[in-house]
Amino acid sequence: ILSKRIVVLPGDGIGPEVCGEAVRVLHAVADRFGHAFHFDYQLMGACAIDATGAPLPDATLAACHQADAVLLGAIGDPKYDNNPAAPVRPEQGLLRLRKELGLYANIRPVTAYDQLLEHSPLKAERIQGTDILIFRELTGGVYFGEKGRFDDGNSAYDNCTYSRAEIERIAHRAFRAAETRRHKLTLVDKANVLETSRLWRETVQQLAPQYPSVALDYLFVDNAAMQIILNPRQFDVILTENMFGDIISDEASVIAGSLGLLPSASVGDAAALFEPIHGSYPQAKGKGIANPIATILSAAMLLDHFGLPEEADTVRDAVQHALDQQVVTPELNPATRYTTEQVGSFIAYAV
Amino acid sequence: ILSKRIVVLPGDGIGPEVCGEAVRVLHAVADRFGHAFHFDYQLMGACAIDATGAPLPDATLAACHQADAVLLGAIGDPKYDNNPAAPVRPEQGLLRLRKELGLYANIRPVTAYDQLLEHSPLKAERIQGTDILIFRELTGGVYFGEKGRFDDGNSAYDNCTYSRAEIERIAHRAFRAAETRRHKLTLVDKANVLETSRLWRETVQQLAPQYPSVALDYLFVDNAAMQIILNPRQFDVILTENMFGDIISDEASVIAGSLGLLPSASVGDAAALFEPIHGSYPQAKGKGIANPIATILSAAMLLDHFGLPEEADTVRDAVQHALDQQVVTPELNPATRYTTEQVGSFIAYAV
Ligand SMILES: CC(C)[C@H](C(=O)O)[C@@H](O)C(=O)O
Ligand SMILES: CC(C)[C@H](C(=O)O)[C@@H](O)C(=O)O
Repeated sequence: ILSKRIVVLPGDGIGPEVCGEAVRVLHAVADRFGHAFHFDYQLMGACAIDATGAPLPDATLAACHQADAVLLGAIGDPKYDNNPAAPVRPEQGLLRLRKELGLYANIRPVTAYDQLLEHSPLKAERIQGTDILIFRELTGGVYFGEKGRFDDGNSAYDNCTYSRAEIERIAHRAFRAAETRRHKLTLVDKANVLETSRLWRETVQQLAPQYPSVALDYLFVDNAAMQIILNPRQFDVILTENMFGDIISDEASVIAGSLGLLPSASVGDAAALFEPIHGSYPQAKGKGIANPIATILSAAMLLDHFGLPEEADTVRDAVQHALDQQVVTPELNPATRYTTEQVGSFIAYAV
Repeated sequence: ILSKRIVVLPGDGIGPEVCGEAVRVLHAVADRFGHAFHFDYQLMGACAIDATGAPLPDATLAACHQADAVLLGAIGDPKYDNNPAAPVRPEQGLLRLRKELGLYANIRPVTAYDQLLEHSPLKAERIQGTDILIFRELTGGVYFGEKGRFDDGNSAYDNCTYSRAEIERIAHRAFRAAETRRHKLTLVDKANVLETSRLWRETVQQLAPQYPSVALDYLFVDNAAMQIILNPRQFDVILTENMFGDIISDEASVIAGSLGLLPSASVGDAAALFEPIHGSYPQAKGKGIANPIATILSAAMLLDHFGLPEEADTVRDAVQHALDQQVVTPELNPATRYTTEQVGSFIAYAV
């Protein structure tokens, strides 16, 4: 009997609702396969600020350090959104958690589901069959560089730095993923302008001989932003730095036709966190209309991380079944009015 | 009789061909409206490196300083593209020219032409009627910040800085443009992470009361990268910093269905440069298949800059006429095999 401790950070807005369904599905997996999953609920985000004054309380951080994995709903509240200069903000909790847990690789699959092609803003024939895996560096770059003001507050700076070691550890992961997929790795950078990008190119190029079956190519980020929309099928694994990854991975999410379907994993050498890519969507809070699938698919990535590929595939098959049967929330099919809980229960039952 | 001096930088690849057609159209405008345009051809880009060793020769820079406007084709050659660490690169010429001429505002209209909706990767009903004007800051930020290596070359840095004055001068231009359009200005930034973005927000917010008819809103760059594809019609004027503008404006270009249609202006207080947004497309060089419309529409923006709106509209109407009559290059209609020169001549004749 496999026993694992999972910290759950429901967070804000629809976070608790979608986490609830993912936990329901994980319970079903534990029952069917005879595992023991222990869930430890902790505060992070606006709810943590409200309760403790801090977006990432010490107790939460300590629990995450001791967990086998972290499952996150979503964080963010409008009362902070329009005030980015507020002294304490929910995002700070997430950024600090990434850094403290050393979650240097954010991994996002982008898949065009046949059942949802009509929902995409892109023409079906352009995107059908798209299957991209994006590796975004998550604990370096301009996000964590020195920043501040000078000249009496009238000038500001943000410093972007990268070291060879930071690039190598995520690049190895991206190469290894490409080896198990279609053997193509695209590095997205701005090497015609940025010194950090030139270091990325140099470093990744030097690792390439260790992965002879993987074809490596390079794309400037401006061109990548076009190519992802013009011809997404050309991509297999994409590797990029933190800021470019933030933009490119959100852009790529439009291919799927709904943010409500896209999971992510953020992994390091000693910890791993799983979360849907969508935000806390406060307008939908408590209405039972939030799509739980992105969080459920994040739970599937968590099962992969536990070394349980059969369990993970069972969850993914159950999600496919829900899509096939149109057991989906209203944004995907206004005609069939299933709630968050009904969709989650259907998937849990199908496990 | 209005007399103007225009420096032409044909550049590399298809640059000379598309510039040739834009100059043809400007000659037609001069004839019809009784102006005198003097064209001074200079070297920049890979052709300049080949001829002089420098991507921006002194003679070129001096000529640009003295001109009333600069018309640029495109720069770049594959022999430099795959070697971003080469000591001299064509892009350095362009970046230096922007800086030396003080071209701090890059302005790009993005229009969904009804005749070309089928060419867009986006569904027609999502994009029909899209009319966005993007203001990208062009002489600051991470492009021009200090950059280098440390730690024996094993770490790299790029510094991004912005001052209030740099933000204000382009923000005023963006507000004024919004006043003449649909009165909406969207600032794209990453104020939840970057100090420079917080300075952008603060500064732009402080200018807003001077433009009471303009509704100002803010979007994080990751969200903007989604929204531009999901619902491009929501945007009127977009304002953003250099690096985000590079990505977002190239991304937005997919809406038009062809890069071959999109013009741009780069303006400062004392100089102005006009160029198509597409690159030098070396594979198409000399084949007569390059679409000259983006460069011709850039010439129309040049006429606007000269204070000749009637002349500019005449050029835009002539372009519309060519699109209506399907007098276009093969990428827009493989059935009608018009060459670059035939399209340019048709438009010049219609002026
Ligand atoms: C909330 C924000 C700081 C965060 C980021 O930019 O990394 C988010 O956009 C994400 O992609 O997870
Ligand atoms: C060639 C390159 C340096 C340039 C930029 O990034 O500014 C180009 O992409 C552009 O947008 O004009």
